[in-house]
Amino acid sequence: MRILLVGAGGVGTAITRIAARRPFFDHMVVADYDLPRAKAAVAALGDAAARFTPARIDAADTRAVTDLLAEHRCDVLLNATDPRFVLPLFDAALAAGADYLDMAMSMSRPHPERPYEEVGVKLGDEQFARAGAWTERGGLALVGMGVEPGLADVFARYAADELFDEIEEIGIRDGGNLTVEGYEFAPSFSIWTTIEECLNPPLIYEKDRGWYTTEPFSEPEVFDFPDGIGPVECVNVEHEEVVLVPRWIPARRVTFKYGLGEEFIGALKTLHAIGVDRTDPVEVRTGDGTVEVSPRDVVAAVLPDPAGLGERMHGKTCAGTWVKGVKDGRPREVYLYHVVDNQWTMREYGSQAVVWQTAVNPVIALELLAEGVWKGTGVLGPEAFEPRPFLDLLVAYGSPWGMREQ
Amino acid sequence: MRILLVGAGGVGTAITRIAARRPFFDHMVVADYDLPRAKAAVAALGDAAARFTPARIDAADTRAVTDLLAEHRCDVLLNATDPRFVLPLFDAALAAGADYLDMAMSMSRPHPERPYEEVGVKLGDEQFARAGAWTERGGLALVGMGVEPGLADVFARYAADELFDEIEEIGIRDGGNLTVEGYEFAPSFSIWTTIEECLNPPLIYEKDRGWYTTEPFSEPEVFDFPDGIGPVECVNVEHEEVVLVPRWIPARRVTFKYGLGEEFIGALKTLHAIGVDRTDPVEVRTGDGTVEVSPRDVVAAVLPDPAGLGERMHGKTCAGTWVKGVKDGRPREVYLYHVVDNQWTMREYGSQAVVWQTAVNPVIALELLAEGVWKGTGVLGPEAFEPRPFLDLLVAYGSPWGMREQ
Repeated sequence: MRILLVGAGGVGTAITRIAARRPFFDHMVVADYDLPRAKAAVAALGDAAARFTPARIDAADTRAVTDLLAEHRCDVLLNATDPRFVLPLFDAALAAGADYLDMAMSMSRPHPERPYEEVGVKLGDEQFARAGAWTERGGLALVGMGVEPGLADVFARYAADELFDEIEEIGIRDGGNLTVEGYEFAPSFSIWTTIEECLNPPLIYEKDRGWYTTEPFSEPEVFDFPDGIGPVECVNVEHEEVVLVPRWIPARRVTFKYGLGEEFIGALKTLHAIGVDRTDPVEVRTGDGTVEVSPRDVVAAVLPDPAGLGERMHGKTCAGTWVKGVKDGRPREVYLYHVVDNQWTMREYGSQAVVWQTAVNPVIALELLAEGVWKGTGVLGPEAFEPRPFLDLLVAYGSPWGMREQ
Repeated sequence: MRILLVGAGGVGTAITRIAARRPFFDHMVVADYDLPRAKAAVAALGDAAARFTPARIDAADTRAVTDLLAEHRCDVLLNATDPRFVLPLFDAALAAGADYLDMAMSMSRPHPERPYEEVGVKLGDEQFARAGAWTERGGLALVGMGVEPGLADVFARYAADELFDEIEEIGIRDGGNLTVEGYEFAPSFSIWTTIEECLNPPLIYEKDRGWYTTEPFSEPEVFDFPDGIGPVECVNVEHEEVVLVPRWIPARRVTFKYGLGEEFIGALKTLHAIGVDRTDPVEVRTGDGTVEVSPRDVVAAVLPDPAGLGERMHGKTCAGTWVKGVKDGRPREVYLYHVVDNQWTMREYGSQAVVWQTAVNPVIALELLAEGVWKGTGVLGPEAFEPRPFLDLLVAYGSPWGMREQ
């Protein structure tokens, strides 16, 4: 298997470090807009760098990506960029005859009149709209294959297959107790993506009602996270699992709640009230005349790079899937989860916990595809595949998952 | 008198509208970095535009400003730009042999080790450092001559001259009940300046201790504003009056408190925690490559122009000087104030209340200088001049001031 990894940011760099220890692939091209960043990711692999080649690419340029896939005879494109580049990369893979994986799906657009009640264009809609072309070509686009979405969807399928006869609700719940020394405000994941998912109208699925939206930060609940993390207040957030899970798993209700914390929610509300969450460019006067910039890109530029915060970070992050339903005629409730300790990821991989936890999952998926354990055609979510081999391989990668019967 | 007005933003434009009704000057050149903005300000004067000429100028370019003063044979430069441009304009006026007025003084720099206890470079220090050159030349730099600083300092001098034998504390208190329809967050004054004054360490003067600083937003107090505005929570803010008043008026303590409100304070704290209040440029990637922008300029660019909000604004703004001391052996406490109703300024001048209230004061000062009622040489604050003629002219301009004995 020859892989084109697009994006050598936090997650992309962690992907190279995880993949470098696995023999399942022949070569990985590490491409980034910023060539020095791609080179640094490869150079950091030391003796293992031989299977990796850095390259420069503009992820928005479908033609250039198609050419790069052909030039390196890549079988698969792994997208580790932010959601703005999903469609051009997805189209490039289709055009080049390569398979495709991503960890976030094509972007949503709110309902023009009733944004906090009805869905407009949903996450991934534009990818699923092209499913016919993928099926026709016999290619596979495995979408939403990070941790959330990704592992959380694998957990949902596992629960449906092995733990429940009937499912009432599947609720993805994400929380942690990470702190970053020396910063008043230092998000542990891409602020661009965090703003996108937290300020968009949260998405909820109900069998009788279909998909609908609410006001941001709705339905706060305190969820008790395992492994010493403890109770964290979680709120509804727009996330791919709510789109993906109901396509393959019968559940009466699907939600996603994120343990943002009151302070972080306040900061996001302020950014939105002021308008610096905007992505459309504004004109700004500088010493050298007027320039156009996207305010959200400026917010990202002033904040520390989350991938570089590992040394100052303490604590654990937890991703998981809470499932409520019936098994053998009795009510059952479980939380399937994956906890990662920053101390462990820093020691083992030099990557901070949140980006490492995202990165490990697409590498496992690629390994299952390379070995023919997972196969499929069309545009498929993680829940379209057998969950057991994935969960076993996660343990083999040194990062066990857990289950709490509640 | 021939005037060069630099800055055709909200305050500059209001200055042209107020001055257009007064015969005391011969000509006013209205100069801005953005020539169409200067032209628009002049064009809006209609029949009264004959005494005004628009011009383009870079306020940071001392040489170009000096040339413009000479070209138009201006007697005085009125600075209506933001505080970054104080020094180049101040120096240009000195070089050109013109007098100089501003409404905000040269910027402070916090103490390098103990920013929230000791002063570093204070507001105006760099202007007072050049006082010798002004005195030598026989020129006048009248600094801090807006509403606050400006009218507030005139009130302080009036209190010292006519109302008190001994002054314990002079506290400038600013508050209002302005609301802006249709915006979650819409500051009524330049956000650049508001961030600067609110996030810098607040300055306090005490006779026994000299100037010192505190943490931002310190010593909250509820101040009851007149004319139906009512109680507003005010906090310490860095402001020029605390520098100016003690130079001319004996008072045991001088403070400045601003009625920001809890929500606005929260927003400023968030901007600071994230770092988008920064003024030093950051590199931001755009579709056309990397650009350098000042994050604070981006915040200003996404917010609505405060000068354009008058139509959606409701309420009043109050600037004033609270004085506590002794008169004829008895304790006395007064609040000298100036309330402006947005409805009135919009109807009379088409300018919103806050910018109009700032703008009227330097026009009055120019009129007093033109008529020889006020005269002086060197770098002087408003409290260096007779307060009565100023206060009388304010009434003659249609905008009375008030006094509350408390």
